[in-house]
Amino acid sequence: MSQKIDSNPKQPVAVTPRAQDYAQWYLDVIKRGDLAEHSLVRGCMVIKPHGYAIWEKMQRELDDRFKATGHVNAYFPLFIPLSLLAKEEKHAAGFAKECAVITHHRLTTVDGDVVVDPNSKLEEPLIVRPTSETIIWAQYKNWIQSYRDLPLLINQWANVVRWEMRTRLFLRTTEFLWQEGHTAHATEQEAIEETFRMLDVYADFAENVLAVPVITGRKTPGERFAGALDTLCIEGMMQDGKALQMGTSHYLGQNFAKSSDVMFLNKDGQREYVYATSWGVSTRLVGALIMTHSDDNGLVLPPKLAPIHVVLVPIFKNDDEKARTIEEATKVAAELKSQGLSVKLDDRDGIMPGAKYYEWEAKGVPIRIEIGPKDLEKGSLCVVRRFVIPVEGQDERKLRKQFLPRAEAIAAIKPLLDTMQRELLERARQFRAKRSVVINTIEEFERYFAGNDAGFAWVHWAGDHAQEDEMARRFETSIRCVPFADQIPAEAQGAGSCILTGQPSAQRVVMARAY
Amino acid sequence: MSQKIDSNPKQPVAVTPRAQDYAQWYLDVIKRGDLAEHSLVRGCMVIKPHGYAIWEKMQRELDDRFKATGHVNAYFPLFIPLSLLAKEEKHAAGFAKECAVITHHRLTTVDGDVVVDPNSKLEEPLIVRPTSETIIWAQYKNWIQSYRDLPLLINQWANVVRWEMRTRLFLRTTEFLWQEGHTAHATEQEAIEETFRMLDVYADFAENVLAVPVITGRKTPGERFAGALDTLCIEGMMQDGKALQMGTSHYLGQNFAKSSDVMFLNKDGQREYVYATSWGVSTRLVGALIMTHSDDNGLVLPPKLAPIHVVLVPIFKNDDEKARTIEEATKVAAELKSQGLSVKLDDRDGIMPGAKYYEWEAKGVPIRIEIGPKDLEKGSLCVVRRFVIPVEGQDERKLRKQFLPRAEAIAAIKPLLDTMQRELLERARQFRAKRSVVINTIEEFERYFAGNDAGFAWVHWAGDHAQEDEMARRFETSIRCVPFADQIPAEAQGAGSCILTGQPSAQRVVMARAY
Repeated sequence: MSQKIDSNPKQPVAVTPRAQDYAQWYLDVIKRGDLAEHSLVRGCMVIKPHGYAIWEKMQRELDDRFKATGHVNAYFPLFIPLSLLAKEEKHAAGFAKECAVITHHRLTTVDGDVVVDPNSKLEEPLIVRPTSETIIWAQYKNWIQSYRDLPLLINQWANVVRWEMRTRLFLRTTEFLWQEGHTAHATEQEAIEETFRMLDVYADFAENVLAVPVITGRKTPGERFAGALDTLCIEGMMQDGKALQMGTSHYLGQNFAKSSDVMFLNKDGQREYVYATSWGVSTRLVGALIMTHSDDNGLVLPPKLAPIHVVLVPIFKNDDEKARTIEEATKVAAELKSQGLSVKLDDRDGIMPGAKYYEWEAKGVPIRIEIGPKDLEKGSLCVVRRFVIPVEGQDERKLRKQFLPRAEAIAAIKPLLDTMQRELLERARQFRAKRSVVINTIEEFERYFAGNDAGFAWVHWAGDHAQEDEMARRFETSIRCVPFADQIPAEAQGAGSCILTGQPSAQRVVMARAY
Repeated sequence: MSQKIDSNPKQPVAVTPRAQDYAQWYLDVIKRGDLAEHSLVRGCMVIKPHGYAIWEKMQRELDDRFKATGHVNAYFPLFIPLSLLAKEEKHAAGFAKECAVITHHRLTTVDGDVVVDPNSKLEEPLIVRPTSETIIWAQYKNWIQSYRDLPLLINQWANVVRWEMRTRLFLRTTEFLWQEGHTAHATEQEAIEETFRMLDVYADFAENVLAVPVITGRKTPGERFAGALDTLCIEGMMQDGKALQMGTSHYLGQNFAKSSDVMFLNKDGQREYVYATSWGVSTRLVGALIMTHSDDNGLVLPPKLAPIHVVLVPIFKNDDEKARTIEEATKVAAELKSQGLSVKLDDRDGIMPGAKYYEWEAKGVPIRIEIGPKDLEKGSLCVVRRFVIPVEGQDERKLRKQFLPRAEAIAAIKPLLDTMQRELLERARQFRAKRSVVINTIEEFERYFAGNDAGFAWVHWAGDHAQEDEMARRFETSIRCVPFADQIPAEAQGAGSCILTGQPSAQRVVMARAY
């Protein structure tokens, strides 16, 4: 018996069109892509196997880059004693409102109910790490005595907790997974170089792996990491025109070395405080990926992050056709796997081919190969791309689908994946260009952000922190970054005057609404 | 200027001889190997880069095996609401005394001091996961409706917290890293097969990667995981003759499905509770590795887990020799790397070769190649093994060291690593055999465990839980497992009578002192 129809198929969730309700579209893409869901714990998500497989691919790519730049991994405690967190004042103030606090270490049973044992109160409360500067620098104190111990280039893959009031899957959750680099250097210059080096690693990863174009720049003082002297960032644009901060790299100066009293003997035999950096990206990048590339059919994945590159769907009407198409699909799968590709043969019974297409498209598999009896006769394969750049006047469905002679099809897959990776970046670049404007007056700014197609506004700015807040109140915008010189498009270059204060400004900044 | 001596070298920690003070020897091996250290947080350790690199290699090997047996990774929340943990009674009771409890979610400043904000008390306390059955099964409820959704084969790499009063680096820490598999099945038989399959994966990993021989078997009811119907385990013997439980695989029956109300529609259209397993190994395995193979020179690593396979040490007395030996070492390194080996060229200035040997031996690097001016002249390399199986009447240092023609030496490295991997397992097997005895009376048992060379005692047992406790009180021993039939050596086979009660016993069990 073949093609038996499931008597109790799960009803697929339809994806709400992006143009109709962007926020709901995002949730639907996650749901249909089977990426993640909310848990019973307020603000904490469950990363489902398909979502986690994407994160694992990101981790591997990032970890290779960290190791190639001389870093090693280590692991530090989940908990931070309250007094230790409080040592660096600005840092503590920055995280005080988001701390999960451990106060007891035992449960007991009272009248049959399991309750917290009041006799197990800790002498000092412990904070679940919101970030690890304080606990790591407390340890570095033992590791660093002389300039010979420097630089110390360490990364940690870990979970962190920041008590968030409003959460959104992947983008902002109470617990999230991330990596945090924490480096120690003998000179300010070396530390600053490291801060930029790691920002470059992030930008390279974003563009060449995530296929998300980013603007690199510097946060304004008000947006700096709590305890940093300088915060660099990469900012991407999502398909609703909002900005997403995708990674940060902080120059910490000697702040944490001072609060943890970490000194070293320099080459001249003098004791000096150590210079520090920290840098991180998180599972938020999965959100960036979804919001940059996906469409109304669900998730679109850049091939470099696709857990499955190619899905093979045999098409048959009877047992004989089933046997023959599955035999061929098995051979094709083996040939593709021998090229190093990750291939899934979907030979499930009782599910119509159309439903399979629908499912794998929603999961973002870049290429589908359909194999039916006619393909066997002709010695051809039907290769279908997950997406195509539309061509004026041509049917998109036809552009996506190619019937190719078998050998040609098999040889075409790898180059096609490379093409798709490039096209995604290019498409995102074009989208960003279309949604970026140069704005010179506050009236223009107001009109722009009152519209439905707002994106990045390149404006001159010379205001202070309070005036940034004023802009946020009036327009719900923020300065995403003060871009580095090479990031500024031709039409936005040069000096001018601040759109709010009229004061002179040396260069434009990027203002936008943001996640 | 070459071979400048460091004016402020770090004094290496001498390793306390194993025979003199085993516990201190263990700590010294960890310290000299730069593997881990205590943190400021009670019971939590810091895994230093070299220790973490070993854990990463273990993870990769295990993860490959999990995926090869059809499992996928996912991630579930760190926190468990108290009421959820309490749902499965035995489970909650088993972990109640070790729970880190979150009660507040904010800090505030009072009179300049950072304190827990009393207004941020949670409505329901959260427990930091000691293990994830309850939070995962709460989620599985949404994922499982029909037999078509089964089996669900999921693994999680995560940190867990169990509040421990007495901790020991790697072996028992308040926070530790582990993997936990949680699977759901349509039938009891499938679930039991999974429990055994994953135990086999662990046993294979222990013997063929860690080079630690293990006995597989079943825990007695009193030693079962809280909430399990059956707990299978692998038990290794450390060099002090004590047992170490290295991994467990639990058959959970329908306990968690019932407490979380997870039912499915079976093929006959009837609703039924799902059958479950869970299984885990942790960073404790790093402790097992250290305690099984290391010696008075420090860490010994099986080549399959060595972050560095070969260290190259150039030996020179002047700048000319330095240039030539480093040039040659660089070439040798490249040739070895092209074989897929991980190679470190130690060309540090100011450290004598002997100090380098000492350091890399302490870190467990399996092979050292020394390259001096004489080797350049002769076209030879000096290959030194980290350890050798002693041969009666021969000098161990000579056995470890071989001068070989260059090409021969380079070709010899990979086979030598394979040999060393095999020898470690064989050496550990012989040690275990020497420290295992068949014991038939309680007097004999008492004498055996009063001695200094106690290990595994194969004894007949028919006692109950209280009588196990009695043995623990009298001799500090426990039943490590009821071994499976194929694990019992010839001399220990057959039925007999319990050493404590004299009651008939079908097979012998393994009793030992344990970590």
